[in-house]
Amino acid sequence: METRPTGRRDACGAALGADWKTYGQKQLEELAADIRAELLDAVKNNGGHLSANLGAVELILALYRVFDFPHDKLIFDVGHQSYTHKLISGRALAELREKGGPSGFPDPAESEYDAFIAGHSGTSVAAGIGLCAARDLRGENHKVVCFIGDASMGNGEALEAIFASEKKPENFLVVLNDNGMSISKNNSALYRSISKLTAKRRYRDFNSFLGKTFKETSAFGRRLRRFKYTVKGWLNKNDFFERCGFKYIGPVNGHDLHELVGVLSNIRRMNEPVLLHAVTVKGKGYGAAEDDPARFHGVGRNFCGGEHTFSAALGKLLCARAEQDKTLVAVTAAMAEGVGLSAFAERFPSRFFDAGICEEYAVTMAAGMAAGGLSPVVCIYSTFLQRAFDQVVHDVCLQNLPVIFCVDRAGLVGADGKTHQGLLDVPAMRAVPGLSVFAPKDAEELGDVFDYARSLRAPALIRYPNGTVPALGCRRKIAADALWEVLQEGSGPVVLACGARAVARALEAAAGTSVAVVNCRTVCPLDEAFLAANAHRTLVTFEEGYIAGGFGSAVAEYFAARSQPVRLTVFGAPGRPVAHATAAEQAEELGLTAERLAALLGTLA
Amino acid sequence: METRPTGRRDACGAALGADWKTYGQKQLEELAADIRAELLDAVKNNGGHLSANLGAVELILALYRVFDFPHDKLIFDVGHQSYTHKLISGRALAELREKGGPSGFPDPAESEYDAFIAGHSGTSVAAGIGLCAARDLRGENHKVVCFIGDASMGNGEALEAIFASEKKPENFLVVLNDNGMSISKNNSALYRSISKLTAKRRYRDFNSFLGKTFKETSAFGRRLRRFKYTVKGWLNKNDFFERCGFKYIGPVNGHDLHELVGVLSNIRRMNEPVLLHAVTVKGKGYGAAEDDPARFHGVGRNFCGGEHTFSAALGKLLCARAEQDKTLVAVTAAMAEGVGLSAFAERFPSRFFDAGICEEYAVTMAAGMAAGGLSPVVCIYSTFLQRAFDQVVHDVCLQNLPVIFCVDRAGLVGADGKTHQGLLDVPAMRAVPGLSVFAPKDAEELGDVFDYARSLRAPALIRYPNGTVPALGCRRKIAADALWEVLQEGSGPVVLACGARAVARALEAAAGTSVAVVNCRTVCPLDEAFLAANAHRTLVTFEEGYIAGGFGSAVAEYFAARSQPVRLTVFGAPGRPVAHATAAEQAEELGLTAERLAALLGTLA
Repeated sequence: METRPTGRRDACGAALGADWKTYGQKQLEELAADIRAELLDAVKNNGGHLSANLGAVELILALYRVFDFPHDKLIFDVGHQSYTHKLISGRALAELREKGGPSGFPDPAESEYDAFIAGHSGTSVAAGIGLCAARDLRGENHKVVCFIGDASMGNGEALEAIFASEKKPENFLVVLNDNGMSISKNNSALYRSISKLTAKRRYRDFNSFLGKTFKETSAFGRRLRRFKYTVKGWLNKNDFFERCGFKYIGPVNGHDLHELVGVLSNIRRMNEPVLLHAVTVKGKGYGAAEDDPARFHGVGRNFCGGEHTFSAALGKLLCARAEQDKTLVAVTAAMAEGVGLSAFAERFPSRFFDAGICEEYAVTMAAGMAAGGLSPVVCIYSTFLQRAFDQVVHDVCLQNLPVIFCVDRAGLVGADGKTHQGLLDVPAMRAVPGLSVFAPKDAEELGDVFDYARSLRAPALIRYPNGTVPALGCRRKIAADALWEVLQEGSGPVVLACGARAVARALEAAAGTSVAVVNCRTVCPLDEAFLAANAHRTLVTFEEGYIAGGFGSAVAEYFAARSQPVRLTVFGAPGRPVAHATAAEQAEELGLTAERLAALLGTLA
Repeated sequence: METRPTGRRDACGAALGADWKTYGQKQLEELAADIRAELLDAVKNNGGHLSANLGAVELILALYRVFDFPHDKLIFDVGHQSYTHKLISGRALAELREKGGPSGFPDPAESEYDAFIAGHSGTSVAAGIGLCAARDLRGENHKVVCFIGDASMGNGEALEAIFASEKKPENFLVVLNDNGMSISKNNSALYRSISKLTAKRRYRDFNSFLGKTFKETSAFGRRLRRFKYTVKGWLNKNDFFERCGFKYIGPVNGHDLHELVGVLSNIRRMNEPVLLHAVTVKGKGYGAAEDDPARFHGVGRNFCGGEHTFSAALGKLLCARAEQDKTLVAVTAAMAEGVGLSAFAERFPSRFFDAGICEEYAVTMAAGMAAGGLSPVVCIYSTFLQRAFDQVVHDVCLQNLPVIFCVDRAGLVGADGKTHQGLLDVPAMRAVPGLSVFAPKDAEELGDVFDYARSLRAPALIRYPNGTVPALGCRRKIAADALWEVLQEGSGPVVLACGARAVARALEAAAGTSVAVVNCRTVCPLDEAFLAANAHRTLVTFEEGYIAGGFGSAVAEYFAARSQPVRLTVFGAPGRPVAHATAAEQAEELGLTAERLAALLGTLA
């Protein structure tokens, strides 16, 4: 990686050298400030998660100071707060989230310091328990540390792991990074429980008594101070973390390096499973982010917003439809801004439901709403819909309930990388009986497809990519007898393009040729009339997705189910993880470009 | 439905008439006894869930006595305890779980009394919140009641819904049926919390004081008694249900009809969201089931066990391999008996992990184990693996961890019906990059496939159906250069059969003909060498699964990805839910029989 153009002390672990562990308090604080400046630079230049990372600097620094990573194992939940960890473990952030640079999330393929992958929510505690089981059965002796935010703690999988067994493994530490925030505001009972702990008066009194009575330098005072976290845990002994088999310690100030190093040093000497509750400020150290952490949660390169995106179009569309139809409600899972629902939430607060990072709950709740006569629209990223696959099958589709899924970030997602790719919704969802699957070609068509999908009064999924896409114009509005749309007539091969980016590239590849281009805006059902009428022609399917089980696979199986031989080429991505880069670079890497399509068409013509 | 051959009072609601709501205590108790006898008869004859239903008789009877279903909405969690509800709402159980008879689970398609589908765990509270939202936005005024067992309460989705918002809807009742049991024994922290409540001494003292001081008939005593559940809730006010926005009432004796009717009547008059904690005995009223409720949890017709099944073979196999390999551990999610792990659990207790009904936690924990150097085998039903789709993708396959999934009940499941069909694992899983998918033809081949899969040191999924399957003999052991196996040579069409039942039926259909039969025991990867060598022949894929995205689809896309025209017929099931019946009847209904295959082959020859 190239040298970063800063004059600051190098916050990157490789350059820090081994001696940073002997830094005094003041040097550590300077290091924290340097790291914060690095983070700000990196996110300004490359996009990424800002607020969460700014809030976690001291906690991660203190963990590194006390524990011996990678011998000890550090597992992040979600992993969007791991930039400080990346820096300390020797990864410069100049090329953060760029092709070849460090990923925005932990990945064992990138560094031995990344003990487990992250990207989705609620997995760290389960993974940590698994790592502890492996360690104990193999007779090893390292510590296992999970780092999880308060919003993730409300996710079903995290709760399963927290509750699952009252006997938690030894030498196991869960750090709860409590910044009182989710991606969007939330009002969950869990967070109230946690924030109640923070305010416990008796502990505050004891703490203040300690401060007033003993000098910092008094040995007895130091011992008492070390003990105070246990006292606090004892005062909170009815807390559910204690019931779940953790020794609860906290709350501690997650920005006080001195306090953190002290507490963590004590914890390191203990064998019991510990939950350390640290209170932090999201966006700490960057005024704008502290004031509006949601806005700076995840930011694109140069903090640019997206006006002409599917997300923005969806937001406007839902507001318009909600005016006309009082039964329309919107449901999301802690991604209201990302899916374009901010304005809806403001205009229709009683019809807007943010489930927190609880995709399963969100989808089944929507099914309940539909069963009760509402018209719920679930707005969710493709990658997170994977979390609610069974709820789509079991709660929505088996009951044939009119829930509309608006699936954002479908296809290649760019800088968020492997854990966030939207490449599995087509294969998984098109097999679910009763679910219609749509892929509009542009933001204008989103409205037509949405209205058509709603008219079916049955489960439907509408998928579209992130970023801006060109408006391609409408030649034939979607209808029961017009599922697909011919965008370019031609006597040569027929390109069956599915999805906004594929259609745009197909038009580009076919421009000025005799190739016909079809906007295949439905995946389920296919436009069978079109296929039957064109079965004699040379057909090429094109999509931004895996070949396995994708749209092309649906076309191939359509003919094979009818024993109908056909000249068909399925053109899509090979089945492998797709790392961070721009979406265009990813498409290039997978060979899904207009040029490659044109080359293929040349061999077929 | 035909008349049931019993001389008992008819426990079926239609025959009960409207007057049963005026029954006195004694008549109600007689009715409960009659219902219990019905349940026992039904499950003896038709299989199903016994213990859970026997334990829920009085609770459901009391709910019906007090609430006004179907105007009020009753939602079951899992739904395996809903037989009493089916009886009271007019569904005779003589043909329970048989084709055309009532399903073993609630289904709105079957009765307006079934407010929401069930079959999987942890969905009821989310669905109930959704129904409440619909009711409130539409200005309706019914009550919504969820009925959930203690084991389901530990499921992630249930916890998400319980924790999700501190403001729970009004006129919302969650009945926690606490029988201190999961499908398998569990020791979760949640259950300990609940059982602690049950034993609260102060409440017991207060209760006993009430009993000693006031006559049952004293008006003040009655009022105090009505109040006592609130007192109990108050004594438990640190309980997490209270924190989560429920008024906690209980624990009550879930078999005391008098107490239940009284408490529920009070609750019905309240507007607040209430969690009623009822303690019941699983298997109540049937000695054998009370003594060994796990054995009678789900039973087949005539309580017959399965010796020559894949499940039994897997159990033996894992025990044998665990002897040789100390790193092998087995993980399941509350289905140890069902997947054949009972003996393993007994022989290797430190290497057996039952996560409870927490599929997500189970899979990520297994990923953690693999990351730590163990060789975890996750044993799970196909339908429940849907709950952990994202964990398979995100935690196991993205990290290329050597976790083996042994997927039982893959394909048609018979009497358990629509919610339990194992028809989506092939489409969903074969698209996941890095996951090998296997389908051995018989229990003997399971061992070969298992050993081969483990040799890959990468994620692998092995799927097989329930019930007994014939041993078909081995002609060519699986190996990297022998993925598929030709079982019958022939110069005619080639049947590519995938999965135990499909292979057996293909052999039957092809017997005595020139048709070749291939055991396609790998879905991912396909045997590309075989396909390339046989591309000129007439090919027919055959599987017990949906056409959409299935094995046949994989073969079709293989050729289409190479622009290779081929004479290929994909033979599988149309995409629709498959209701309860025997697995053979279901195959018949979907046209997946040897006869239909033979007929097809006749048209191609």
